[in-house]
Amino acid sequence: MARRTCERFQARRPINWPQAKATQHWLCHERNNNKRLLLRWSGGTTMNRRDVLKAGLTLSAFTPMLGWMNLIAQQQYNNGDGQLDHPDRYKNLPADAPTIAMVIYEGFTVLDLIGPYQFLWALMDRRVRIVAKQKGPITADTGIQIIADTTFDECPKDLDVLFVGGGTEGTLIAMQDEETRKFFADRGKRANHIVSVCTGSLILGAAGLLKGKEATGHFAARDLLIEFGAKPVNKRTVEDGNIMTGAGVSAGLDLGLALLAKLGGEDYAKLCQLFFEYDPDPMFDYGSPEKAKKEDVEMSIQMVEPFREAVKQFAREIRHEKE
Amino acid sequence: MARRTCERFQARRPINWPQAKATQHWLCHERNNNKRLLLRWSGGTTMNRRDVLKAGLTLSAFTPMLGWMNLIAQQQYNNGDGQLDHPDRYKNLPADAPTIAMVIYEGFTVLDLIGPYQFLWALMDRRVRIVAKQKGPITADTGIQIIADTTFDECPKDLDVLFVGGGTEGTLIAMQDEETRKFFADRGKRANHIVSVCTGSLILGAAGLLKGKEATGHFAARDLLIEFGAKPVNKRTVEDGNIMTGAGVSAGLDLGLALLAKLGGEDYAKLCQLFFEYDPDPMFDYGSPEKAKKEDVEMSIQMVEPFREAVKQFAREIRHEKE
Repeated sequence: MARRTCERFQARRPINWPQAKATQHWLCHERNNNKRLLLRWSGGTTMNRRDVLKAGLTLSAFTPMLGWMNLIAQQQYNNGDGQLDHPDRYKNLPADAPTIAMVIYEGFTVLDLIGPYQFLWALMDRRVRIVAKQKGPITADTGIQIIADTTFDECPKDLDVLFVGGGTEGTLIAMQDEETRKFFADRGKRANHIVSVCTGSLILGAAGLLKGKEATGHFAARDLLIEFGAKPVNKRTVEDGNIMTGAGVSAGLDLGLALLAKLGGEDYAKLCQLFFEYDPDPMFDYGSPEKAKKEDVEMSIQMVEPFREAVKQFAREIRHEKE
Repeated sequence: MARRTCERFQARRPINWPQAKATQHWLCHERNNNKRLLLRWSGGTTMNRRDVLKAGLTLSAFTPMLGWMNLIAQQQYNNGDGQLDHPDRYKNLPADAPTIAMVIYEGFTVLDLIGPYQFLWALMDRRVRIVAKQKGPITADTGIQIIADTTFDECPKDLDVLFVGGGTEGTLIAMQDEETRKFFADRGKRANHIVSVCTGSLILGAAGLLKGKEATGHFAARDLLIEFGAKPVNKRTVEDGNIMTGAGVSAGLDLGLALLAKLGGEDYAKLCQLFFEYDPDPMFDYGSPEKAKKEDVEMSIQMVEPFREAVKQFAREIRHEKE
């Protein structure tokens, strides 16, 4: 297999991302000040400007990749001081670049967030923010802590993507919190895409964003979407208008890939799928209620029975308030 | 589908986990001080002690689930103060409970960690620690920050599982760091299971843990395992003795499920797979070099070419030092 090394890597002179986007070409750096673009194979052959432009057209489908490669190219390999100098992912993004707001709260389920995050991060022309009511460490339902970098107040009004994942008690407390519901109602009204994984759809529902909409969520709580006026659908990913909801926990990877394809194009999404080696091969075929034993499905639902009861009670309360 | 509510949930009196483990029975709380165990269906029927023991035997395969249900039962649903009181996951664990150490470093890839973490966390008789050279926020290669709760020094000497995920430049710097290599060499020597995802296997290799062993890693860097005396295998999950390695990024979910089955039993792993709805269904079938276009595979390798070169150079250096 051919091993190519673009001289840009050695030069570590980053591509200007907006320019790369505008020209839709694979730009290597100029060399010897003679304006000739060079792409060098490790074998030492060189390409002239025409060859590069030709290669560029082939690669133009992968424009977002340029930003990513740029990011890697900015890294200073083996520089000897033993410290990682994190490249600034957003340095070349315009201030008004679209924002992907991924909301977390105390007691969120961490894979609900990280599955989609890993895919959506690859959209190099967008800014991903980890949003919470307060900035700083937020503890997942499993104990691991993730830093929220943006508060509700700091979060841009007009979002490209408004995302929220699920959990159990933490999700209930989040939906019971008026400030949280108001945040979702406000940003959801304006967002290009409203997205959830697992019981995150119940938060969207409590914020009034799912009325009359088809939606999914964790199988053990999906039917509760009715309480908020939504139409539960037994599918892994459901789209209704600008609302995309995913089933439980690991469904976020499939949803993330689908959203990446929608926002970044299918060819780019496939390239990312390859780079993240998302070719799943679980050792059991047991990951849905249809494939599992009835007892196990019942036990799963029983586990979240107190959550189910509390959600129903809360839904009654907010319906009552409105009457 | 039957909806059952164990009174234990209402009573919020947690099961004593070690006791539950010892008796291998589904223990509900005692009621009316008359030592009769009750399990109440929402319909109001009750079971006597014999019925409960019978049900308990059926469920005995899922003993670890008791701990999990206990955790959920400890949650105070709808208690009205709007704050989540995180239940102490490890309160009832003996001090010498087996430890799963998941090592992170500046520039790690977050899904490499979180895929296995979500599954391994479900092992209720083990303590999961997020370990790094320094405690506190560690920044992933995508910018998201996760809190390390344990330093190398604080990490128990004898581990059940020693885990590390991958990345690119951060992974290189981690393997170049002598303290990090010494930590892996020491804990790896004693650990019951040595586990990696993605380019994490290169760190294991640099620490001398893979000599003569079959191993895998991200497809764009898998061949580099040779540099550390390992035998690269083109598989999603590879086991050789007590060493389990996974391919790139998302392979950690399959590896996590496999390790959960090994440590917690197949029935329990399947129940967790169901609860995490791990029934993957990516919209493209493009997640491995065998399934992708040759150009995309080449581009992926080209992206990490500087990393590849630096790893090879470093491997030469440490071989040279030893001569």
